[in-house]
Amino acid sequence: MEVDLPDVVAEVTAQFQRYEQALVSNDVGVLDELFRKDARTLRYGIGENLYGYGEISAFRAARSPAGLARRTARTVITTYGRDTAVASTLFYRDTVPGKVGRQMQTWIRCPEGWRIVAAHVSIIDEAKGG
Amino acid sequence: MEVDLPDVVAEVTAQFQRYEQALVSNDVGVLDELFRKDARTLRYGIGENLYGYGEISAFRAARSPAGLARRTARTVITTYGRDTAVASTLFYRDTVPGKVGRQMQTWIRCPEGWRIVAAHVSIIDEAKGG
Repeated sequence: MEVDLPDVVAEVTAQFQRYEQALVSNDVGVLDELFRKDARTLRYGIGENLYGYGEISAFRAARSPAGLARRTARTVITTYGRDTAVASTLFYRDTVPGKVGRQMQTWIRCPEGWRIVAAHVSIIDEAKGG
Repeated sequence: MEVDLPDVVAEVTAQFQRYEQALVSNDVGVLDELFRKDARTLRYGIGENLYGYGEISAFRAARSPAGLARRTARTVITTYGRDTAVASTLFYRDTVPGKVGRQMQTWIRCPEGWRIVAAHVSIIDEAKGG
């Protein structure tokens, strides 16, 4: 298994950046596209645990589009072989001072393209997590 | 890419259970063994963000062995192909009533065996996350 093949890293980075842009602009179509449409797709969010694409999609549709702007930091994208990647980033929102967010996603190359199969987002005190 | 091949699920489940047993008994040797020894291995913990195997191992060595007992719930292990898996579980500790923990790990089949390359653990109010 080869780690961080440059062409694979480039592919995943492009999709990760699409996701980030969609997130801060609340482009629900792209957010939905990039999660794998499967009952096993899982997302632990800041305040909810979502099992399966249906729950994730329903959450997106109901989410307030306000206050989504954020800065990211220490983003790490690592690929394992040609079909798996983990994308992790810290993030900060002006609306939640003193806190640092952590977002971790596992991406799989599917027939339809790179898709997130599992994601976990959480927020902790900045003093703890840097 | 085949999802949830039974033999692969069985392999990862066995390692996941080893990890859980090691966690609640603070068996640092097994915990260290099961994280990939690489600078790109990443662990977002309940109150810390750890970059690379060295930081993770140092955290384990310094951790108090008290209060580690926990119950798990809604554990989901999904494999993608023969070399990638995501293991996710909720957990509850009697010492933190009213809270639910979420643990998500990405496992990769390495030459030395199945290893965690990325993990994210967080705790939220139980009323939110169920």
